[in-house]
Amino acid sequence: MEETFVPFRGIKNDLKGRLMCYKQDWSGGFRAGFRILAPTTYIFFASAIPVISFGEQLERNTDGVLTAVQTLASTALCGIMHSIVGGQPLLILGVAEPTVIMYTFMFNFAKERPDLGRNLFLAWTGWVCVWTAILLFLLAILGACSIINRFTRVAGELFGLLIAMLFMQQAIKGLVDEFRIPKRENSNLIEFIPSWRFANGMFALVLSFGLLLTALRSRKARSWRYGCGWLRSLIADYGVPLMVLIWTAVSYIPASSVPEGIPRRLFSPNPWSPGAYENWTVIKDMLNVPVIYIIGAFIPASMIAVLYYFDHSVASQLAQQKEFNLRKPSSYHYDLLLLGFLTLLCGLIGIPPSNGVIPQSPMHTKSLATLKHQLLRNRLVTTARTSMSKNASLGQLYGNMQEAYQQMQTPLIYQDASSRGLKELKESTIQAASSMGNINAPVDETIFDIEKEIDDLLPVEVKEQRLSNLLQAAMVGGCVAAMPFLKMIPTSVLWGYFAFMAIESLPGNQFWERILLLFTAPSRRYKVLEEYHATFVETVPFKTIATFTLFQTTYLLICFGLTWVPIAGLMFPLMIMLLVPVRQYFLPKFFKGVHLHDLDAAEYEEAPALPFNLATEAELGIGASFAGDREILDEVITRSRGEFRHTSSPKITSSTGTPANAPKIIESPRPSCSPRVSELKGEPSPRSGSGGRGAHSPRGGEVRLSSLGKSPLNTTAN
Amino acid sequence: MEETFVPFRGIKNDLKGRLMCYKQDWSGGFRAGFRILAPTTYIFFASAIPVISFGEQLERNTDGVLTAVQTLASTALCGIMHSIVGGQPLLILGVAEPTVIMYTFMFNFAKERPDLGRNLFLAWTGWVCVWTAILLFLLAILGACSIINRFTRVAGELFGLLIAMLFMQQAIKGLVDEFRIPKRENSNLIEFIPSWRFANGMFALVLSFGLLLTALRSRKARSWRYGCGWLRSLIADYGVPLMVLIWTAVSYIPASSVPEGIPRRLFSPNPWSPGAYENWTVIKDMLNVPVIYIIGAFIPASMIAVLYYFDHSVASQLAQQKEFNLRKPSSYHYDLLLLGFLTLLCGLIGIPPSNGVIPQSPMHTKSLATLKHQLLRNRLVTTARTSMSKNASLGQLYGNMQEAYQQMQTPLIYQDASSRGLKELKESTIQAASSMGNINAPVDETIFDIEKEIDDLLPVEVKEQRLSNLLQAAMVGGCVAAMPFLKMIPTSVLWGYFAFMAIESLPGNQFWERILLLFTAPSRRYKVLEEYHATFVETVPFKTIATFTLFQTTYLLICFGLTWVPIAGLMFPLMIMLLVPVRQYFLPKFFKGVHLHDLDAAEYEEAPALPFNLATEAELGIGASFAGDREILDEVITRSRGEFRHTSSPKITSSTGTPANAPKIIESPRPSCSPRVSELKGEPSPRSGSGGRGAHSPRGGEVRLSSLGKSPLNTTAN
Repeated sequence: MEETFVPFRGIKNDLKGRLMCYKQDWSGGFRAGFRILAPTTYIFFASAIPVISFGEQLERNTDGVLTAVQTLASTALCGIMHSIVGGQPLLILGVAEPTVIMYTFMFNFAKERPDLGRNLFLAWTGWVCVWTAILLFLLAILGACSIINRFTRVAGELFGLLIAMLFMQQAIKGLVDEFRIPKRENSNLIEFIPSWRFANGMFALVLSFGLLLTALRSRKARSWRYGCGWLRSLIADYGVPLMVLIWTAVSYIPASSVPEGIPRRLFSPNPWSPGAYENWTVIKDMLNVPVIYIIGAFIPASMIAVLYYFDHSVASQLAQQKEFNLRKPSSYHYDLLLLGFLTLLCGLIGIPPSNGVIPQSPMHTKSLATLKHQLLRNRLVTTARTSMSKNASLGQLYGNMQEAYQQMQTPLIYQDASSRGLKELKESTIQAASSMGNINAPVDETIFDIEKEIDDLLPVEVKEQRLSNLLQAAMVGGCVAAMPFLKMIPTSVLWGYFAFMAIESLPGNQFWERILLLFTAPSRRYKVLEEYHATFVETVPFKTIATFTLFQTTYLLICFGLTWVPIAGLMFPLMIMLLVPVRQYFLPKFFKGVHLHDLDAAEYEEAPALPFNLATEAELGIGASFAGDREILDEVITRSRGEFRHTSSPKITSSTGTPANAPKIIESPRPSCSPRVSELKGEPSPRSGSGGRGAHSPRGGEVRLSSLGKSPLNTTAN
Repeated sequence: MEETFVPFRGIKNDLKGRLMCYKQDWSGGFRAGFRILAPTTYIFFASAIPVISFGEQLERNTDGVLTAVQTLASTALCGIMHSIVGGQPLLILGVAEPTVIMYTFMFNFAKERPDLGRNLFLAWTGWVCVWTAILLFLLAILGACSIINRFTRVAGELFGLLIAMLFMQQAIKGLVDEFRIPKRENSNLIEFIPSWRFANGMFALVLSFGLLLTALRSRKARSWRYGCGWLRSLIADYGVPLMVLIWTAVSYIPASSVPEGIPRRLFSPNPWSPGAYENWTVIKDMLNVPVIYIIGAFIPASMIAVLYYFDHSVASQLAQQKEFNLRKPSSYHYDLLLLGFLTLLCGLIGIPPSNGVIPQSPMHTKSLATLKHQLLRNRLVTTARTSMSKNASLGQLYGNMQEAYQQMQTPLIYQDASSRGLKELKESTIQAASSMGNINAPVDETIFDIEKEIDDLLPVEVKEQRLSNLLQAAMVGGCVAAMPFLKMIPTSVLWGYFAFMAIESLPGNQFWERILLLFTAPSRRYKVLEEYHATFVETVPFKTIATFTLFQTTYLLICFGLTWVPIAGLMFPLMIMLLVPVRQYFLPKFFKGVHLHDLDAAEYEEAPALPFNLATEAELGIGASFAGDREILDEVITRSRGEFRHTSSPKITSSTGTPANAPKIIESPRPSCSPRVSELKGEPSPRSGSGGRGAHSPRGGEVRLSSLGKSPLNTTAN
């Protein structure tokens, strides 16, 4: 992305890019059929449950002025609007913890001022939102998001881990509170006598750990060995919502022998009561706010604006990491502009505003990658079966599959390069087949194991569309109506779900993986090499990795500590933004450039100020990674969003798109671990010796992503 | 084993065999040093905890005549005597569930007879024991154990699974009871009001699942990726006792906020109270028992004798399965004779007798295999390091290691063949090394990865000695003194431990593995082939496996159902003994001999009435299996006691001892999965085609165990 600060240029570019694929965003979504419901439900739960919980928190903190009804309404409203008119539809919007903290501070401030008080609180927050919106407009128009590329992996992943820590903290705090008398409740109730309180706490432990463990298991159902395929798919797709249902049902099993309040359940207002919507008309009170407070609202507004600018952009960035091989352009500036409008709207109708959320946004992309994989897979399997039944040769078979694959491709104007994908592998496979002497003979399933081969062929791709986002936002809206049902969910299930979300967001976070590496016994480190792993594992000395990780961990702990400091804690995004100059000017003094590049690739080091290149991005979208096995792919998509292991092959491969060492699939169908170790044993550091060049890539057809900037194609577009 | 019914011959042979190695049984144990404590503690817990629980059960059922003090005393006494003068020291003795059921029936019978009653109950059981002992003497002398070989895998594994089901049933029943008021207790106590009962039940769920999950995890600590080696070893060795301690400690965390009886803890009598040992003098009452009851005692005695004959022999057999490559001879007849004496002794001092227990006995062997592996490993690593520091060539290195390995071998008279082991692999490795041109150059760690290579070299062996058995029995005796401490263990931890034992006994049980195979999705069955697996997976059609397994499962369920029928339930061993004729005469009508052989190798089908062959056994002890990797070995030892996968290489390999296709270790150090799939794809059934012969064996140096009977060496000895 060009770092240009010419007003409106960023927004114009974003709009141009997204308009190009706007129609396809919808048609693609509808073409996916009922399968779109899997990622939709998954994200709906990930989005709604924290929002409800934050709503409860807000209700306690604001004496009931704002409740879960308002947070859900905001999330639904902003989500629907963003999914329809927003730029990047992978981005999920919602009311987040920082917003809750901010509103709590503002309420505490307002209720003690006699000329504001509880009554004018919402009107005053309206003004705060007005100022915030103005600031966001300015940031968007002036192209502040151009510097998003300076937020390198180091900053994004630190932020991701911080959010995971906050979620986990909330889970633990919630569980501990299950043993205590809640503040707002009448402590004379039967369920608060010591014995029932203890029983409630223990029950909460059972429910939350039950949910956590089963939900984590169910996500891996696709790789289970037992049960038929459709059942495993169903569990993997809908397991988490299902588990929430199941554990909610379990919580009713002892209903006859416990008092009503055991276990504790969600406390939510009745959305149909008369006063529940008084916030909608807050705009008429806004002029009653004293001028001094209208001006003073600029102070919280500036904090919120910085927070949103950062949150929104990073959430969007994490949803669009390179490993996902997205084909459609990003839209940072325009989305920030839209966020300004949404904030304004929320302020005027008296509900807390939403912004892009982590970890839901990257979770969304991951689940869409799984969807895309299934769609492609089904289509290609059908095609291959049809071809075989017509006694096609291997050449014809690949031809047909190539055609089918083509038809599944997003028909965008920068699509010229997308016809590769299968071709490379087809060639190498045919070559292998011809050496076996059966190139023109009809293929049957003994020669060509359809299901396996297709898994070998398919690259990681994401079903980029707007439907799942729209549907999940609409479902969040439906929650307001379904409040009486939501009230049946035990709070302990909620805490289990928080812990689940924290854990789900860890795999693929290289920072986290490096922390694990520090705890890995030296004799077991070779195991890391046998799996998917990032380049740095092979190229950077362990000591350097350790130093870098310790530095990052210290920084993380400082940020985490800051969140405990009242009001100042809100400024932890500033700490993370501080990482940008730290990374750019401070770290290079302590680490070798080549190591830093592998630990935290920054585009400015590779190719400063080169224009964002659609064609190259699109081309890279193919070829970039061919998973060797369905489950391994599964792992890539659902468990790991880390860079793939890179070969040390010459950088030219990214521009030609032809991997130097395309694998011969039939000859070695499971290139999993074996070759790696022998290779590594002889040559401790592939980069240092000559061994790296000829190394077998465990994953066929990889392309050195980070060489993007040096691709000759880069100068052509934009 | 010869099926000879010449009186005393079996006992004589047993004694001869065991006396030969008696001295080594002790010296070997002491040479193991402090490491012997790992299996000792492991088995001590597995032995003591059920015995305590059965003691509590007995106390409730006999109005306190017999308590945990007596069951512990019996287990300790019999265990100590068996470990010193017994035949097979791998066999663990203890008071088992059938004994408890039997004593319960006898108590209910006795207490209702006015001329027996509660007072003469123990004296009467004394007479029952006398009769039982006489019957056991007869069985032992007449060589009844000769037919132990007719108890094939199908019977042994069905029995093993049945025991696992009973343990699991006990765990579930125990947990459910935690929510109820125990029968013997005063229901007016505070801990039995509904709220505390519910709290107690929930707490019990937390404690028992906590113990179960952490104990299962800790057993796999050796293969963890995190933490240093000694810590992982420590956790793997002592994890289960440690977890009992930890969860007991956890149960005290809420002590200040709950009444004393929450959670419920072991209820045990004070062993130091005056009346606690009145049973010791029961012998003086024995003549007061009316003659009719003395004669009538023959009826329960015959049932107990059959039960013990079966239990004891099968427990001993499961502890000596072929996969363990034991070197010392078995001792079925002599052990049965000794059991008679022990039963007599227990009867006369008024304590319930002990017999060989499942799953503790096979658990004992497994833990000793782990111990032996570690001892061998440490020695060889040290030797290799020393050689390297002296710049030895690969040839010298292997020479030194060979020598060290020799010294570690049990110095028995039938040891001539034991010098192989490393030699085979040495040759193939040197061959591989010479092809790389460095045979005479000094080796260093880059060429020869000591730790890995040694794991490749080591066969599965068991540290056969008497010390661990003696120590664990002594520790069980110590439990009587430590009763006040044992009382601190929550009963829920006990239930978790029962479930743990049930689950621990499953892996390696081919019956269980076949059940799992039935539930494995057809598309995932290839995964079974990638791991260790028994021959039948490759050679028997799936349909046949399914039919066989369904038959066995039905049989199992009938046996399980029988245990629910009062008194008749005691006769379930008869059902299992019935399997012998079923297997021999009925099954061959429905299954092909070759399939049956792979599913359930019976010696009478291979080589009827051939003498038991020490030399061949000893020879097979080496060469028989070389695990490719420490963890895989770990898996073999601790998780699986199934036959290893057999290659289809010509049967002659077992007699020459030279695997036809010895692996080239350096060339492919991790022969894990890759070759298997390609191999299998081309040739769906290795037996049917020609492909099997040349197949790479994923595990080097395997020998077709089942061809034992056909080995020419078989005719030479005994």
